[in-house]
Amino acid sequence: MSAPQSLILDCDPGVDDAVALMLAFRSPRELRLLGVTTVSGNVGPSLTARNARLIRELASREDVPVHAGCERPLVRPPVDAGHFHGATGLGSLPVFEPRAPLARGHAVPFIVETLLREPAGSVTLVITGPMTNIALAMRVEPAIVPRIARIVFMGGARSAGGNVTASAEYNIYADPHAARIVCESGCPLIAIGLDATHQVRATPRRIAALRALGTPLAAAAVSLLEFSNSLEPYRAPEPGAPLHDPCTIAWLLRPQLFELARARIGVETDATLTLGATAVEFRVAAGESVRSQWATQVDADGVFALLAERLS
Amino acid sequence: MSAPQSLILDCDPGVDDAVALMLAFRSPRELRLLGVTTVSGNVGPSLTARNARLIRELASREDVPVHAGCERPLVRPPVDAGHFHGATGLGSLPVFEPRAPLARGHAVPFIVETLLREPAGSVTLVITGPMTNIALAMRVEPAIVPRIARIVFMGGARSAGGNVTASAEYNIYADPHAARIVCESGCPLIAIGLDATHQVRATPRRIAALRALGTPLAAAAVSLLEFSNSLEPYRAPEPGAPLHDPCTIAWLLRPQLFELARARIGVETDATLTLGATAVEFRVAAGESVRSQWATQVDADGVFALLAERLS
Amino acid sequence: MSAPQSLILDCDPGVDDAVALMLAFRSPRELRLLGVTTVSGNVGPSLTARNARLIRELASREDVPVHAGCERPLVRPPVDAGHFHGATGLGSLPVFEPRAPLARGHAVPFIVETLLREPAGSVTLVITGPMTNIALAMRVEPAIVPRIARIVFMGGARSAGGNVTASAEYNIYADPHAARIVCESGCPLIAIGLDATHQVRATPRRIAALRALGTPLAAAAVSLLEFSNSLEPYRAPEPGAPLHDPCTIAWLLRPQLFELARARIGVETDATLTLGATAVEFRVAAGESVRSQWATQVDADGVFALLAERLS
Amino acid sequence: MSAPQSLILDCDPGVDDAVALMLAFRSPRELRLLGVTTVSGNVGPSLTARNARLIRELASREDVPVHAGCERPLVRPPVDAGHFHGATGLGSLPVFEPRAPLARGHAVPFIVETLLREPAGSVTLVITGPMTNIALAMRVEPAIVPRIARIVFMGGARSAGGNVTASAEYNIYADPHAARIVCESGCPLIAIGLDATHQVRATPRRIAALRALGTPLAAAAVSLLEFSNSLEPYRAPEPGAPLHDPCTIAWLLRPQLFELARARIGVETDATLTLGATAVEFRVAAGESVRSQWATQVDADGVFALLAERLS
Repeated sequence: MSAPQSLILDCDPGVDDAVALMLAFRSPRELRLLGVTTVSGNVGPSLTARNARLIRELASREDVPVHAGCERPLVRPPVDAGHFHGATGLGSLPVFEPRAPLARGHAVPFIVETLLREPAGSVTLVITGPMTNIALAMRVEPAIVPRIARIVFMGGARSAGGNVTASAEYNIYADPHAARIVCESGCPLIAIGLDATHQVRATPRRIAALRALGTPLAAAAVSLLEFSNSLEPYRAPEPGAPLHDPCTIAWLLRPQLFELARARIGVETDATLTLGATAVEFRVAAGESVRSQWATQVDADGVFALLAERLS
Repeated sequence: MSAPQSLILDCDPGVDDAVALMLAFRSPRELRLLGVTTVSGNVGPSLTARNARLIRELASREDVPVHAGCERPLVRPPVDAGHFHGATGLGSLPVFEPRAPLARGHAVPFIVETLLREPAGSVTLVITGPMTNIALAMRVEPAIVPRIARIVFMGGARSAGGNVTASAEYNIYADPHAARIVCESGCPLIAIGLDATHQVRATPRRIAALRALGTPLAAAAVSLLEFSNSLEPYRAPEPGAPLHDPCTIAWLLRPQLFELARARIGVETDATLTLGATAVEFRVAAGESVRSQWATQVDADGVFALLAERLS
Repeated sequence: MSAPQSLILDCDPGVDDAVALMLAFRSPRELRLLGVTTVSGNVGPSLTARNARLIRELASREDVPVHAGCERPLVRPPVDAGHFHGATGLGSLPVFEPRAPLARGHAVPFIVETLLREPAGSVTLVITGPMTNIALAMRVEPAIVPRIARIVFMGGARSAGGNVTASAEYNIYADPHAARIVCESGCPLIAIGLDATHQVRATPRRIAALRALGTPLAAAAVSLLEFSNSLEPYRAPEPGAPLHDPCTIAWLLRPQLFELARARIGVETDATLTLGATAVEFRVAAGESVRSQWATQVDADGVFALLAERLS
Repeated sequence: MSAPQSLILDCDPGVDDAVALMLAFRSPRELRLLGVTTVSGNVGPSLTARNARLIRELASREDVPVHAGCERPLVRPPVDAGHFHGATGLGSLPVFEPRAPLARGHAVPFIVETLLREPAGSVTLVITGPMTNIALAMRVEPAIVPRIARIVFMGGARSAGGNVTASAEYNIYADPHAARIVCESGCPLIAIGLDATHQVRATPRRIAALRALGTPLAAAAVSLLEFSNSLEPYRAPEPGAPLHDPCTIAWLLRPQLFELARARIGVETDATLTLGATAVEFRVAAGESVRSQWATQVDADGVFALLAERLS
């Protein structure tokens, strides 16, 4: 068995970020979670920081530090997604003030210092929210860029169309300039956008399998998934809401569940109609230096089986 | 049987425009072809005008006037597509100077006068090239807009991705401002973009069926289709090049071959990366006044069967 | 004395367009006015067409045809300027239905046919409104472009700043795509923007000199100028409103009243904040082919003296 | 006499930045210089950091820390200005490795920590280069924004036109997104752009007055000014190159030398032609909350007299 993969998880929980956190926290054999960093996004920055700590407590992983990060996007005004995450950001899950506090220090220097301290090429960044923290870290300290093993992010859309506008997915739309900085960084990218995550639906059968686990963490996950399923546009007879963010962790744990294609990925920052669209170009010449991959297919049953395994 | 549908076919032949012309010319019972108008696009304006007359002669339809139109796009510089259509615009089909000349008068006043003369709501416009002629006609004489029965166009891409850039399909990219004028006109639109046409491939079996017809027109069509199939990126083992433009005429003749979805269609004119992208929004509220439809599925065998029937 | 200069005057009257028309109508020895064309702009298209005929009647020049043109801008939605021109477009001047009707035929084919009929290089176009008509004419019939002697237009701003937004002058802002088409056409351009026209103020002394003429046309001009001076932001103690559009005709009649500098002139069509800004570049290399000039200085007393001379 | 003004000087020396540094270093009674921060801009980041230390040594002010900052702009690629500053960034001034090293720590946390430590409202930021450092600091720690007394920057152009493109001044053009972040921050701004600095020319007479001082620092300043005057487009018979950056420090020391007007200041980030243009709107309603001012007039003799006084 190989050594655990070191990673920083940068997120804006958020209902599906919360499930991604659960999956990461409950995979200690494969994942060495150096820290969780939070960002303004689905809900405001104090809520995302509180929610990350709350899920951490539910998962009994107070050993992992949580650092709060940027309070707004780089250039554009904040974009609210409260409709999809509820007033607390965690749907109808009962919220409480977690026991363990935030770690001292802003997410950006934490990211910089961690990458400079750990062996070059050993740390993966997972991003499940707007990319503000990572983009700022790259600009404050460009020396981190070649030290990043890879960036696995949930964001963007090609064939699926957008979920905020006709063209744009939320995480990219909420901070397109940050996404452009990350996508132009030259880091190896694993992009898991709506094309993939729209295949991973929280169907009643899959939710029932989680509920049957009977653990508190599984019950919390069920609450989160059922909240999403209660919302327009995901109510029955829809098959269930897509499970976006956990796909990033699922890829790290079981890459064989995903089909990826080599692609150049651009981000539109200068438009109005298509602001935040991802331009995904599969026509890459053989000799071209393209280090990014775009997820096209997912084994949704496999993702839910993995989730059930880890929440049991 | 219903009365024939009056139409003007605005095109830039172009290999696949030529096949669309054949299909239209050879459907006199269903289609009352008031005129063909040509525009700069796949190849330059004198070639598209010549090619429309050449196909007219092959189809023995000199009764249909051909009017040459705009020699360049509205705002942006011309975009060449010669690679896909050959130096003549008709692949390796032997070209000749057609006997019958162009009709007198520019395409734009021809379109305006025809629409003002024919009964309101009786004339369909089919566009298989950049939309420069139609956009100019709408601006010179806005009174034509409510008289147009519908506009059926080949253009745009959503789930298929673009064919010029990662985001943009050629006909839209070549004159995005004209496409925006047409898409914002309020006319009923039938948009047949790459999502649909990429399903309609000129496979060896389908080409063989056309060749077996033994008619000169079928032989010309085969030459055009084989030219496309000889090009990167359509060479074997690819299943054959997509047959774009004839889908517009096929929809007019046999709409049951197509699945369409109601959608708002926007065109990006103000960007660099995503210039000419189509923003297709299916999430249309029930009460919303949206008169445009986007083709999502095509019965490709049905399209080729129709083509074979008409070229026999 | 030289032969009269042939010209077409394309306008959107509009208070200051009306004064420009008076100046042109009353200069028959120098100006052979082939026609007046109107466009939607300061007020709607039926008002600009009526107002041009009304001023024509006041000036007793029913020999000059008036052709109505485009009813809206090329791409962007119409921009109202009613505040500056009153509900009728002619301030508080009493309006009436003119005796002589519009000439038959749209402005665009009139411009095209006139330029193709008159000797190449003999006709000047003067534009004092949005450039929609001229841009459309250039796209419908590119052969007119090299036949245009020069285009003299009121529009744009560099050092003066904009009058609609911080960056943009009204005529350009109202149809930036048309302005870009004209400015990129390669025609010789005389651009008279706010940098120049803001120097030409309708001071009480200058208005008094016009009123003293005692002619009906002068009285009408005084009414128009006083209307502008009654408006925010031009009320006393401001020195009077700028007299924009007549500067174009004044340049044709007395170019020595103006200082011009060779410049490349670009028009911003793809921005939000600076939409319709003119990028004026004086740093032109000696050998560079730049055929446009930008007005930097005007002898305002000279312009008003010319106006008084012609309205007497 | 009032207490000295605390400030951080953020710069990219650069010839005129170097003179600004001299002026600041030699005004210890009025200016409490908390630190100098450097950024990539006129020349690359290692050169601007070295040059700031070099000028510091010439000015005998090793008590002031120099912190190196961002190595490239926020979003767009770097824009070189080497032509105007020479290979070293200091024209033909002999360069050497300064004795005192850089302070430990990146400019961005230095700016953040200094603003959080010093009394709120007590620290002025002066920016004479691209605004990357300040913009990043604002995004990493928004709490600094209301603590900034004011931001005095050299950048932008309105009536003067741009110096990189027709519309854009270098400091804004080189990082328009950072400039937009700063201009939208709500901080009180004193904007000293080309409209003002083009009035402050290094004429032979003014240079002679500096040379007559006979001090090493004055000799270094003369070398820098003469380098600028030797370049296209500033060679004789031009009156001398504009002295941009020192105007910021001159305003702090003698605001009475400047005329300012209240204005909203926008920065174009989404265009191609006018990228980096500043949209300066003087038409501000009386009750409107606008905290930015734009320099319109400068007493150039006064600025040079101040410079001579401090370099003597």
